[in-house]
Amino acid sequence: MGIDPGLARVGYGAVLQNGSSLRALTYGCVETDSKLQFTQRLLKIHDAIQAQIDFCEPEFLSVERLFFGRNTTTAEYVFQARGVIMLLAAKNNLPVIEPKPNQIKLALCGVGAAEKIQVQKMVQRFLALDEIPRPDDTADALAAAITGLSLFR
Amino acid sequence: MGIDPGLARVGYGAVLQNGSSLRALTYGCVETDSKLQFTQRLLKIHDAIQAQIDFCEPEFLSVERLFFGRNTTTAEYVFQARGVIMLLAAKNNLPVIEPKPNQIKLALCGVGAAEKIQVQKMVQRFLALDEIPRPDDTADALAAAITGLSLFR
Repeated sequence: MGIDPGLARVGYGAVLQNGSSLRALTYGCVETDSKLQFTQRLLKIHDAIQAQIDFCEPEFLSVERLFFGRNTTTAEYVFQARGVIMLLAAKNNLPVIEPKPNQIKLALCGVGAAEKIQVQKMVQRFLALDEIPRPDDTADALAAAITGLSLFR
Repeated sequence: MGIDPGLARVGYGAVLQNGSSLRALTYGCVETDSKLQFTQRLLKIHDAIQAQIDFCEPEFLSVERLFFGRNTTTAEYVFQARGVIMLLAAKNNLPVIEPKPNQIKLALCGVGAAEKIQVQKMVQRFLALDEIPRPDDTADALAAAITGLSLFR
């Protein structure tokens, strides 16, 4: 299962591998309303992702690493939300891999500097989906999951 | 209950107010070994602070706000650990206040620019302790708790 961590949106996506064939088991995006208290947003993320873990029983979590430039206020809150995901990994005895964005691009497209849309098109192709999953967070989570399959084994 | 969030050390301290008199109900510091996996360190923090919440049944959590300069790698991990504390607040239906360091100094010493040792001496005096609680994280957590009493009511 891949996770694209965030506070307003947390993408998730579970991929099942059968030989060289992949299929998406479930994917989506948990959204938290900015009108909610911060701690309540964390609880919503916790409960929603725990429910997905219960449903998918994944072998590992692939949680994208986050990089921020100078926007430290956003970073402060997003890292706290990421901590909730990392806690869930431990609570569920799941090993974690933390691919960097360029590792995900490399795994999906063969080049670490691929464009976002190229990564999304490869997610669509690998999983034989009718369209690119929306929002971007969902596609990013599936990309993290696919990357995890190669890094984890 | 006050918390000084961190990854290697999380200070906690619960203060009971009876009129103008304060006393420390419990205080200490959760330490996590850097040899543990990051997710296991978060789980240890989660379980240890939950146990303290169960023991003290606090009315609120006062979780010190964190400020970092350029050391963004440390910040990344410490904010994730702080997210675990904030999640615990929501899971236990506890209101949270997030005093800044200068608010804590102001509440304890009457000046926002007080020295750390002055804050620690006021913690010792307010709580009538034989010595300054160690490590610093513990004293800081008690200071956050005392600050919370004035901000929360």
